[in-house]
Amino acid sequence: MLTMQDALARLTTYWTDQGCLVVQPMNTEVGAGTLNPATFLRVLGPEPWHVVYPEPSVRPDDSRYGENPNRLQTHTQLQVILKPDPGNSQELYLGSLAAIGIDVAAHDVRFVEDNWAAPAVGAWGLGWEVWLDGLEITQFTYFQQVGGLNLDPVSVEITYGIERIIMALQEKTHFKEIEYAPGVSYGEVFGQSEYEMSRYYLDDADVDTNRKLLELYAGEAQRMIDAGLPVPAHTYVLKCSQAFNVLDSRGAVSTSDRATEFARMRRLAGEVARLWVERRTEQGLPLGTVTPREPARPAATVQTSDSERTLVFEIGTEELPPAELRSARDQVKRLLADGLAGTRLGHGDIRVFGTPRRLIAVVTAVAAREEDYVRTVRGPKAQAAYGPDGAPTKALEGFTRGQGVTVADVEVEELGGVPHVVVKKHEAGRAAPTVLADVLATVVTGLRAAKNMRWNDPKLSFSRPVRWLTALWGDDVVPVAVSTLAAGRRTRLLRTAVPPHADVDSAETFIETLGVNGIVADHEDRRELIVVGAQDLVYPDGRIDVNGEAALIDQITDLVEQPLPLLGTFDESYLSLPDAVLTTVMRKHQRYLPVRDADGALLPMFVTVANGPVDVELVRSGNEAVLRARYEDAAFFYRADLATPIAEMKAHLNRLTFTDKLGSMADRAARISALALSIADRLDIGSPVLTRAAELLKFDLGSQLVTEMTSLAGVMARDYALHAGEDRPVAQAVYEAELPRNTGDLLPASVPGALLSLADRLDLVTGLAATVGLPTGSSDPFAVRRAVLGLLAVHRNTPALAGFSLLDGLELAAGAQPVPVSPEIRTAAGEFLAKRLEQVLTEEGQPIDRVRAVLPHAARPALVDVLLGQLATAVTDPGFLSVAAAVQRSRRIVPAGTAAGYDPSVLKEPAELALHEAVSAVPAFTDVSSFVNATQGLVEPVGTFFDEVFVMADDPALRAARLGLLATVRDLGDGLLDWDHLRL
Amino acid sequence: MLTMQDALARLTTYWTDQGCLVVQPMNTEVGAGTLNPATFLRVLGPEPWHVVYPEPSVRPDDSRYGENPNRLQTHTQLQVILKPDPGNSQELYLGSLAAIGIDVAAHDVRFVEDNWAAPAVGAWGLGWEVWLDGLEITQFTYFQQVGGLNLDPVSVEITYGIERIIMALQEKTHFKEIEYAPGVSYGEVFGQSEYEMSRYYLDDADVDTNRKLLELYAGEAQRMIDAGLPVPAHTYVLKCSQAFNVLDSRGAVSTSDRATEFARMRRLAGEVARLWVERRTEQGLPLGTVTPREPARPAATVQTSDSERTLVFEIGTEELPPAELRSARDQVKRLLADGLAGTRLGHGDIRVFGTPRRLIAVVTAVAAREEDYVRTVRGPKAQAAYGPDGAPTKALEGFTRGQGVTVADVEVEELGGVPHVVVKKHEAGRAAPTVLADVLATVVTGLRAAKNMRWNDPKLSFSRPVRWLTALWGDDVVPVAVSTLAAGRRTRLLRTAVPPHADVDSAETFIETLGVNGIVADHEDRRELIVVGAQDLVYPDGRIDVNGEAALIDQITDLVEQPLPLLGTFDESYLSLPDAVLTTVMRKHQRYLPVRDADGALLPMFVTVANGPVDVELVRSGNEAVLRARYEDAAFFYRADLATPIAEMKAHLNRLTFTDKLGSMADRAARISALALSIADRLDIGSPVLTRAAELLKFDLGSQLVTEMTSLAGVMARDYALHAGEDRPVAQAVYEAELPRNTGDLLPASVPGALLSLADRLDLVTGLAATVGLPTGSSDPFAVRRAVLGLLAVHRNTPALAGFSLLDGLELAAGAQPVPVSPEIRTAAGEFLAKRLEQVLTEEGQPIDRVRAVLPHAARPALVDVLLGQLATAVTDPGFLSVAAAVQRSRRIVPAGTAAGYDPSVLKEPAELALHEAVSAVPAFTDVSSFVNATQGLVEPVGTFFDEVFVMADDPALRAARLGLLATVRDLGDGLLDWDHLRL
Repeated sequence: MLTMQDALARLTTYWTDQGCLVVQPMNTEVGAGTLNPATFLRVLGPEPWHVVYPEPSVRPDDSRYGENPNRLQTHTQLQVILKPDPGNSQELYLGSLAAIGIDVAAHDVRFVEDNWAAPAVGAWGLGWEVWLDGLEITQFTYFQQVGGLNLDPVSVEITYGIERIIMALQEKTHFKEIEYAPGVSYGEVFGQSEYEMSRYYLDDADVDTNRKLLELYAGEAQRMIDAGLPVPAHTYVLKCSQAFNVLDSRGAVSTSDRATEFARMRRLAGEVARLWVERRTEQGLPLGTVTPREPARPAATVQTSDSERTLVFEIGTEELPPAELRSARDQVKRLLADGLAGTRLGHGDIRVFGTPRRLIAVVTAVAAREEDYVRTVRGPKAQAAYGPDGAPTKALEGFTRGQGVTVADVEVEELGGVPHVVVKKHEAGRAAPTVLADVLATVVTGLRAAKNMRWNDPKLSFSRPVRWLTALWGDDVVPVAVSTLAAGRRTRLLRTAVPPHADVDSAETFIETLGVNGIVADHEDRRELIVVGAQDLVYPDGRIDVNGEAALIDQITDLVEQPLPLLGTFDESYLSLPDAVLTTVMRKHQRYLPVRDADGALLPMFVTVANGPVDVELVRSGNEAVLRARYEDAAFFYRADLATPIAEMKAHLNRLTFTDKLGSMADRAARISALALSIADRLDIGSPVLTRAAELLKFDLGSQLVTEMTSLAGVMARDYALHAGEDRPVAQAVYEAELPRNTGDLLPASVPGALLSLADRLDLVTGLAATVGLPTGSSDPFAVRRAVLGLLAVHRNTPALAGFSLLDGLELAAGAQPVPVSPEIRTAAGEFLAKRLEQVLTEEGQPIDRVRAVLPHAARPALVDVLLGQLATAVTDPGFLSVAAAVQRSRRIVPAGTAAGYDPSVLKEPAELALHEAVSAVPAFTDVSSFVNATQGLVEPVGTFFDEVFVMADDPALRAARLGLLATVRDLGDGLLDWDHLRL
Repeated sequence: MLTMQDALARLTTYWTDQGCLVVQPMNTEVGAGTLNPATFLRVLGPEPWHVVYPEPSVRPDDSRYGENPNRLQTHTQLQVILKPDPGNSQELYLGSLAAIGIDVAAHDVRFVEDNWAAPAVGAWGLGWEVWLDGLEITQFTYFQQVGGLNLDPVSVEITYGIERIIMALQEKTHFKEIEYAPGVSYGEVFGQSEYEMSRYYLDDADVDTNRKLLELYAGEAQRMIDAGLPVPAHTYVLKCSQAFNVLDSRGAVSTSDRATEFARMRRLAGEVARLWVERRTEQGLPLGTVTPREPARPAATVQTSDSERTLVFEIGTEELPPAELRSARDQVKRLLADGLAGTRLGHGDIRVFGTPRRLIAVVTAVAAREEDYVRTVRGPKAQAAYGPDGAPTKALEGFTRGQGVTVADVEVEELGGVPHVVVKKHEAGRAAPTVLADVLATVVTGLRAAKNMRWNDPKLSFSRPVRWLTALWGDDVVPVAVSTLAAGRRTRLLRTAVPPHADVDSAETFIETLGVNGIVADHEDRRELIVVGAQDLVYPDGRIDVNGEAALIDQITDLVEQPLPLLGTFDESYLSLPDAVLTTVMRKHQRYLPVRDADGALLPMFVTVANGPVDVELVRSGNEAVLRARYEDAAFFYRADLATPIAEMKAHLNRLTFTDKLGSMADRAARISALALSIADRLDIGSPVLTRAAELLKFDLGSQLVTEMTSLAGVMARDYALHAGEDRPVAQAVYEAELPRNTGDLLPASVPGALLSLADRLDLVTGLAATVGLPTGSSDPFAVRRAVLGLLAVHRNTPALAGFSLLDGLELAAGAQPVPVSPEIRTAAGEFLAKRLEQVLTEEGQPIDRVRAVLPHAARPALVDVLLGQLATAVTDPGFLSVAAAVQRSRRIVPAGTAAGYDPSVLKEPAELALHEAVSAVPAFTDVSSFVNATQGLVEPVGTFFDEVFVMADDPALRAARLGLLATVRDLGDGLLDWDHLRL
């Protein structure tokens, strides 16, 4: 059996064989190998750097006294940095797995999107979690920024989670059972330390001492920065981080503390990074400079066909995130269509396919050449071209010489009304390969993702690195070259294929070649294989909820090139866990499809989809082990929670800080409850259910399971409440209080649930607006935007609340805050809310003009919905349109400051008198519908008035009366709509 | 070329192949791998533990900005722990050197005594520095105590200094040039960190911050101890240590701070160790328990000779320290002689030889058997043995039955005056092997060293482990068995011999067998080989000062078994360094013999003595490289010092704390100077030389060279002063002020030198007596005893000071201290001084009675010397003896309180009148000689008086007069001697 120490040694040897240095772990506590100066500092600047080292990584928060089978306060990372990105780091990585005996062809090894960021040190990168049969064993990242500095060259960071890998290889179910060295278990070596350090981090560390340490460390870091010494400064930044983590694990960090400390650390880390680069530059970059790669030379242009052929263009990438893959397919199609449209090359349909590793455009019937073309070259004016004798002038001779023609070749043509000498050049259309080369290049350079990265290419930027191009027109290679990439006829297959590439004969056989090698290019085909395969696997007892899981299935479909659905099972005993716990783990953590029986009850099985021809039994059992470990974790917490009285969990909220200034979570829950009860009073919709639910509110935040899986807040509250014997409506309300958890989520169905949900969000928005301010730009650390969106959604969804103004809600919430909330802040919050509502409604497809027209009612979103609905009908009513046009016209014509009202006796024209009468007869209205009815009588008179009456009469009295009449029309719908915005 | 990272990997692999675990370096700064819990905690208790790990070891004090070629603030240790001691760890270690390509047969690999101790963590052990061609590359220690706990089993600690080993292997002269990885130098990887961390440790670390950190760490350590958590507590002890080291390197630690902090750390570390053992025991010792080794079975007893044969007994050890080897030779001789004396075995001469690895006793003519012996067994009284009829009684029958004889075999013999029945048993003497086995066993168990250790033997204890026994009587193995060791005929040769052992035919050929294999058993033979060899090597130009270097040569002789003197050279340019610098390095650090020319000037060469048949060129060049590095270091500092004005060095004394309460070194120097001038004034022996020397005093403590090599204090002062143009007598006085540096050292020859030396020591003693107290027991951290001894020596050696009382000196010094010095403290200091003088004089061979008699003059040691000299003469003078006897007799006879003085008119006997006259005529005297002269006239009368006069007359008046007369005699020598102590 490969021991853990052997695995470390073998991986180290593997990477030193690839040219890596070995250094030692950092001699101060770090949370990850990334923080070791051998990464943090060395990825900065232009010097090359290849290194491998182990790093005991300390996560005080993961302390579990050594009891949890998979969670350690100190775990062992093996860290590899490749600077510059060698271009084949994934393949090198797979080689390293082979070096520790992992058969990467038999296992299901996958690169699953992971966007890494460490805001506390100003660092981010894009890459993946690497999954081994569903188990995350490695973080793989292309560093883009560290210490706030852009990295050039980009480094590849590979971080192995050694304990997890070894547990999988040794088939252990508890980290303590790992065979660390021959005959010596991990538990024997590290078990006591796990227990004792957990005690320290969770129970015994002195908070006051650690606060003081944090301050002293930060002071020393700053002093060293001032002294221009990045190395000791960096050490002290690390010590800050550890002290902070200790405070955090002791529950002594509030949300605002966290933000403040992160900001300070980010600033210090940024200074360290800047200084390091400065120092290295001063020293003349002792390790040299990475040379950027040279541009690639395109393939020779060869055209062997004269007839139409298919074009295939494959952009080979490293694993794209599913969402980016979808977007990229659309982009390729658009870019290619636009590009071709700019040429004179005939072509048929454009289709675009994609897998995680490739984007493929297929264009049928691409002509062999562009159509020929006659180009007119303008020469001198005819007058100046020939002498009086008709002989060519010097000007003409110069022109013909320059064009390489004779005087006999020129014609005279009228250009801009003046006869000119011209030459007609018959240009043959360019050959397809030549034309396509240019077009395809712009497709590659035009690709953009939501988040783009750099790699070892000096010019390209995309979601993940582009590694190869395959471009064929018929049998011929299209000589595309983009930066360092030149297209050929070679495509890459699954990395485990032998050989892992294939040369394709022609564009027409491209998709077939992939198919023969197992790769299913088309998303729909893959999806079908997955759906049918999964359904087959669970038949006849099980069902896959294909509609309910559509998003998950789409995601899975774009995680594989050759889908292989596998059925796994888990122990029935886990079915005693709540459905939401089981499915959250399956969907969110593992991307497994849950399986249900005909009644919708979960069965103890799941479908996972492997990529390629793996060893089914091996991969199945690997995935089962991962799920077992996760369920074991969850069961561990669930049991503990069920054994804990609700009151005790609720009491725990006193120990959770919400924010420094806004008190504990217990304080917050109390404010929400009081607010909900007060709104209910006001609307007279209180109930015993609400009262009890308000008492229980948020108690599950004090449970262990929710601490672990925060997305289950509310769900677990309902479950635990029912177990504790609470009435079902009460349990439901406590659950609904947390809805909606994100956009598109369920909304509270009961009135008590809606009241609590509303109160929750009012409290959050008001409190944060008064302390840290409303979010601006893209930064919204406290998710205030999401809270506001929830507020609006709940109001719109709850008829009982329709009459309640959110501005009143904000005012009530403001009064309950432990800090003063000024009227200005309340106003700003109201405006913020209106702005969000505008955004939501336009995103729902409401025309912006109508949305703006009803926005004065933003504090009653339910009313806004009603008005918009009526408006949609009204705008099809010519009468309404006339009246509205009149109102708007009046608003334009009548000078500002003109009051409604006039002396009707002055009026004399029949049209104005008719309008006067009609206006006077308009009855009261409350909404758009009643407005339409109320103003029906106005339609004709107002039309006539504008046709026949000249408002600006010379007689001042008459003019005043007419303007007064129009002002009355102007003000007709005041308070109902903001008429200026309405476009009719 | 073997890179540094390869070397680490190979050593790690080597040790894992030997069953070691690999763990990671500690993730908080440590000064040595020993402090990593994988050593510090794991060597405690009975569980086995085998581990190897690298440890970047941080020594803030060694910071040199990366400029010094051999000194780093962080160097890389490779640490190995073998628990229990496997018994062959030296051989395993040599195997590890071979694993990194070191040919241990070609190189000179040596185990040189090193007694390791880390008082700050309550740890000590015995072992060696391992030298590779003179370069210390490894620390090798048998741990005896850690955290104040005795270790059982004992662990072997092997600590490789990786940078040094690699520099030697790669033949680099600066650590930065080490090839760390292929194509990447050490300087490129670590150079900047060396510079910046040096800046931190030497210049920029904030003292106040680090003081606070130290307190916070200590507090947290204590809290964790109170919580019963040794692991986090240990981490905080390590952090304490680092903070302390930072303060130290910033020059912010006074001598008393150091003592206080060490005491605190020792206490904390002790608590940690105790708790760790407690925890492990609670857990049932998860790694099991080391089983003590079984006793060995002795060889079968075989005797093949009936005649006298030689006995050889070899006790094979690991390398003994030279001083212990000398002592052990004597012990073996004594133990063996005593042992044999307790038998009836005839034998000839006993000789004992020794090398670092063996003690060999050779006894000639050991008889084949003990002499035979008749033993008388007492039976019943004769009376009870036979009935009236002469028939044997039951008692007799019982006796004979018990003795296995018949009634016919008994005799009657008078025992204690009573006739008893006895049996005469003729017992044959036991065979030599049997007898010798017992005797030799007691030799082994009887061996003791000044400092003894335990190893993997459950019963033995000695300076270093005993590993084998060879015992032959003639051709036969003597069946000695001691604990786990059984003797045989196999001896071990040099470790590099092939094979490394030999079976010896007979005792008579033993020494020859060793000799044939190169081992020279006899110290004198080896010494001769070294002396002659060395002289040959340097002939004709050079000289070895065989007498001057006698102690060094003796030491070298006992460091080798097969001496091979080698001549090495060094660059002539180093001769510009002071002689003392060059020779201190050679003798003290390298144990090289200096070579001088006929005029006594150093030549650029040295003689080193290798052990065994090494590759001469290789070893020579290795040693040369070591010396070059050391001289380069010294030259580096020397040049820097010469470029520094004396005033600047002197100013640096302000930054050196003497002790917390006694101020800086500058303060102390000022006090000493003032005191010296004041004594000079008092004695009227002041001079311009003294005045100037007093100004310069101790300035070289501010030099870099003396900071490095403290033993050169004074020597460098003289050198630098002369270079700075000071007068030679001034420079000499500044030098002499530091004399004597230890017992037997030179003493100041000039009066200014003596005055400064005296003042120095008076200041030290007074100040420390008043602050930390005078030393008691064996603890004397400030070397007050040595100061007092110096004080006495200087006084005795300086005639100009003879009249000066050291008590006056203490009083003067007391007045100058920055703290109050009470009269009680001065008195105690005076008594302490007298006690030391008594000790010195008795050690010089003065009879204790005379010493005590003159001790009242201890404040004037020079006078004490005079008086002792006179006393030695006086005690051969019968007259003095009579007078002295009379004085003593008078002191006994005359009751306490009787005053001298009497009424002479009451006297009547001629003898008493004669005495009266003689006493009255005694002239004044000042010392013993004059006393002898002055009392000449007393000799006869006093004798007659005691013969003839009965003092206790009935007549009270007469009795009073006689007692008064005797009281006068009694008081005759008062103030001259303490007569009571004189034994005549």
